[in-house]
Amino acid sequence: MSGYTLYIANRNYSSWSLRPWVLMRTLGLDFEERLIPFANAGEPNPLPAISPTGRVPCLHHGELRVWDSLAIVEYLAERHPGVWPTDPTARTWARCAAAEMHSGFGTLRSVCSMTCGQRVVLRERPAALETELQRLRSLWTEGLTRFGGPFLAGATFTAVDAFFAPVAFRLQTYGLRLDTAPDAPADAYTARLLALPAMRDWYEAALREPWREASHEEDIVRVAASITELRHGPP
Amino acid sequence: MSGYTLYIANRNYSSWSLRPWVLMRTLGLDFEERLIPFANAGEPNPLPAISPTGRVPCLHHGELRVWDSLAIVEYLAERHPGVWPTDPTARTWARCAAAEMHSGFGTLRSVCSMTCGQRVVLRERPAALETELQRLRSLWTEGLTRFGGPFLAGATFTAVDAFFAPVAFRLQTYGLRLDTAPDAPADAYTARLLALPAMRDWYEAALREPWREASHEEDIVRVAASITELRHGPP
Repeated sequence: MSGYTLYIANRNYSSWSLRPWVLMRTLGLDFEERLIPFANAGEPNPLPAISPTGRVPCLHHGELRVWDSLAIVEYLAERHPGVWPTDPTARTWARCAAAEMHSGFGTLRSVCSMTCGQRVVLRERPAALETELQRLRSLWTEGLTRFGGPFLAGATFTAVDAFFAPVAFRLQTYGLRLDTAPDAPADAYTARLLALPAMRDWYEAALREPWREASHEEDIVRVAASITELRHGPP
Repeated sequence: MSGYTLYIANRNYSSWSLRPWVLMRTLGLDFEERLIPFANAGEPNPLPAISPTGRVPCLHHGELRVWDSLAIVEYLAERHPGVWPTDPTARTWARCAAAEMHSGFGTLRSVCSMTCGQRVVLRERPAALETELQRLRSLWTEGLTRFGGPFLAGATFTAVDAFFAPVAFRLQTYGLRLDTAPDAPADAYTARLLALPAMRDWYEAALREPWREASHEEDIVRVAASITELRHGPP
């Protein structure tokens, strides 16, 4: 027994939950998962009792509460090999890229809210979104080229790939491509993330979720010219 | 020679620059500082040649470019003692709190833009700002109480204090108090940060800066009912 309990929210929406979950699953770390669906207005919200910010993910380990996704990664990195690359240059690059995702890409996160089980055509593509997609392409291409792939910082899936895993679902949902040429490195990397066993498990479970949370659904409707529904859990 | 070169922007405005700078200064790490003032529209902008995101802070160390403030902290933590607390529980708490600042407190950051050398009365205090100030008070009070102070995670200044150092300037500039009682822990901690030698050096140098950058100045004018100017560098 590792003693790890990872609290997450709805797989369909919760991009922050996905990051430590896909890392722990892909590294083969033993943990107990507890999924707390987002509460609609007026419903009781158990999250403040679980996490000091009232947000997930939150990792419980004995008395410890690790309440931020990047801090969870560093906590695991002190205890298990493989969380970050072994090579110091690759590790530094990976930490920069993960931290850039942690505090940045605000337009991508707000315009292209994660919803694994839908396909959305955007009404418009703001210039700020194009700028962020260009940065994403340049960052991913740099990592894949410099460290030899097939993952961002080398041969194995590490925390930096986990940090960009939700982006792969967003690109799929909103039909966004990063490269202009077919099979170019950044789009091939997106496909590689989506094909990982842990990502496929997350996705299939997201499709089966019965919950619809109003504020997330509104975020999606607001930007959509059209929506295709793939979720087959009872609404 | 450590070989560290830390690129920063205007001391008056650049809250992100302050974080690694105050950490390195307070830990006594040797580094060369290069200040690149924010360019006004139409002026040449040297930052894209310095940092892959075009943003500072960026730490150069030999061929390495460490382009995010939290990644700079972890890079230094691998090389020098004292960056994070030695006690594992305090260290985990410190990483969570620093990461929460790194990705959060968006209203405080946008409404109370850092401008060390001005005193600003806000036109209004949005509810989201009050919520963030309450979270700040609860987080700081928890750290100071749990780890015994006088710093957030114990007896010494560590990276988590560096991450909240810009907040001390914001609270001073906008006349915001966290506690209701005088000399309560969170406001006393703010005063303690402002009194640190490195913070005083930063502040005095900010007052002497001659540069005024239009978009930062506009951010401040937009929220201000009144502004008192303390900067005495030639405008």
